[in-house]
Amino acid sequence: MTIRRSLTCVLIAVAVCASVRAQTADPLPSWNNGPVKEKIVAFVRAVTNANNPRFVQPAERIAVFEHDGTLWVEQPMYTQLQFALARVRALAPSHPAWKTQMPFSAVIDGDDKAFEAAGEKALGDVVVATHTGMTPDEFTQLVVDWIASARHPRFNRLYTDLVYQPMIELLTYLRTNGFKTYIVAGGTVEFVRAWSERVYGVPPEQIIGTAFVTKYSVSSGRPTLTREPDVDVVDDGPGRPVAIQQFIGRRPIFAFGSSDGDQQMLEWTAGQTGARFVGLLHHTDGVREYAYDRTSNVGRLDKALDEATSGNWTIVDMKRDWGRIFAFEPTN
Amino acid sequence: MTIRRSLTCVLIAVAVCASVRAQTADPLPSWNNGPVKEKIVAFVRAVTNANNPRFVQPAERIAVFEHDGTLWVEQPMYTQLQFALARVRALAPSHPAWKTQMPFSAVIDGDDKAFEAAGEKALGDVVVATHTGMTPDEFTQLVVDWIASARHPRFNRLYTDLVYQPMIELLTYLRTNGFKTYIVAGGTVEFVRAWSERVYGVPPEQIIGTAFVTKYSVSSGRPTLTREPDVDVVDDGPGRPVAIQQFIGRRPIFAFGSSDGDQQMLEWTAGQTGARFVGLLHHTDGVREYAYDRTSNVGRLDKALDEATSGNWTIVDMKRDWGRIFAFEPTN
Repeated sequence: MTIRRSLTCVLIAVAVCASVRAQTADPLPSWNNGPVKEKIVAFVRAVTNANNPRFVQPAERIAVFEHDGTLWVEQPMYTQLQFALARVRALAPSHPAWKTQMPFSAVIDGDDKAFEAAGEKALGDVVVATHTGMTPDEFTQLVVDWIASARHPRFNRLYTDLVYQPMIELLTYLRTNGFKTYIVAGGTVEFVRAWSERVYGVPPEQIIGTAFVTKYSVSSGRPTLTREPDVDVVDDGPGRPVAIQQFIGRRPIFAFGSSDGDQQMLEWTAGQTGARFVGLLHHTDGVREYAYDRTSNVGRLDKALDEATSGNWTIVDMKRDWGRIFAFEPTN
Repeated sequence: MTIRRSLTCVLIAVAVCASVRAQTADPLPSWNNGPVKEKIVAFVRAVTNANNPRFVQPAERIAVFEHDGTLWVEQPMYTQLQFALARVRALAPSHPAWKTQMPFSAVIDGDDKAFEAAGEKALGDVVVATHTGMTPDEFTQLVVDWIASARHPRFNRLYTDLVYQPMIELLTYLRTNGFKTYIVAGGTVEFVRAWSERVYGVPPEQIIGTAFVTKYSVSSGRPTLTREPDVDVVDDGPGRPVAIQQFIGRRPIFAFGSSDGDQQMLEWTAGQTGARFVGLLHHTDGVREYAYDRTSNVGRLDKALDEATSGNWTIVDMKRDWGRIFAFEPTN
């Protein structure tokens, strides 16, 4: 062994020891002490303890998290939709016809009521016009640029500041304990991949999401991928367990969601023998965040709430269980 | 720190030091010394050296390998097809109608010529009959059972013994250097996932492949996934770079293939600025393995061979560059 290698070896050893020591601190400081936090910690301790009958090999420790409303704020409007509307306004000067063409005219005029009244079809038109007809790299750059400056209407903060601090801690805690953490997003996969590694520590290849048909072509010897105006994978409802099988090929032992669109993913995780943890985040804090469930148009939580209550799912009451919601709040 | 934690820490440190020491040995002992091996090693050294202008961050070190003919033997018939034919014969007693129904009758009678003459449609019928209408777990178990005992007609060895030892070393070498290794298979993804971790050290979530439409349902409170008789993802030709984008979301910097079906994946890796390595395995050893290229029905290598020659791809000549092809061969 050369001196350089020996030094590397010692440095790594020191880092490993420091990391072992760090694990003795509370890994979930933004979670209030109580049954929910205890259940999470007990689960992680059980599946990582080789002497526990519930022990799970590291390779099988797959954790999946839904995105909107589970890892970051989804009210009053999904962030990806905010992005799409901003893109319509940015593109308007080069699309003069949009001035009189619904739903684009409603977006340009800021007429939210007219846009909402135009329904799902209008939403689809806006998403296709702003998310396709470009390469994945070009789309990523648009997201990176927008998310670096766009602000949430109520909090006046960057959207990436509106990720839930307790969930960041949970993601880190799971990874420290050998879990592989995945985000299973209902929105477009590249919208999340553009910044997920920086904000969540989750790399692009561990983001699953709705995807557009993509075409490969070569022009002038240069290979190109192009996002086409058709949806390929729909990662919502029953599409979530299907996408998990397709992308991961293992059944998660840990899943977290927050709405009816996540019900099947949570059922799929719950419906197996052996160790598993199923969490459902209930938005109950209208002061610090938002309070909504059964009648909300955004992130409706109705059937999944009933299923959580009747099954062995863990309901996280945001108001009760989270001491701090955002990193920018002062710590208690 | 408790005594137990301290002990863990020391043990990990010792393991780390041993691993650092191991790296000083030749990482590719089954590759003959020469320009190809030198090029691989030079590439890996460059992208892992922070002082080198070609340095690549660990997160961006994505390596993709095609499967049939790149990582294991594909002659005289793709292994997955051997599996499908074996399944037809195993299922025949419970499908009496197959006795007189093409292409099943040809398979049951062992009439290879009639089966081949029936073409692509026959192949599709056999694959659908043997690969769908069950859960992914049930399919995986069928593969696990079959591959534990089925033997290659020429070598009389388990198919998992017919993986290429130089490629196993290359996969390990890349991972030791911070690469994430993926298999991008033209065949059905679950066929490879069933044993990839054990044989290649590549976990299921890093296997991309052709997939069947999968449906989610709940019956008697039990959630189930079912493989349907329609192909969803076709992971071949131009479908490979598309699947890489969809599953990984990053452009690989290292790619290895062996046939025309891999051409677009190799182009996609080659066609970027910055560090990249593109390898093409040429089957030139009719004594130790098989010699075939431009006219073979299995793993045809024609256009991609021309493109490799005109571009900056590295052609691996199996006869010249591999000192040992299979682990069961005696070492020189």
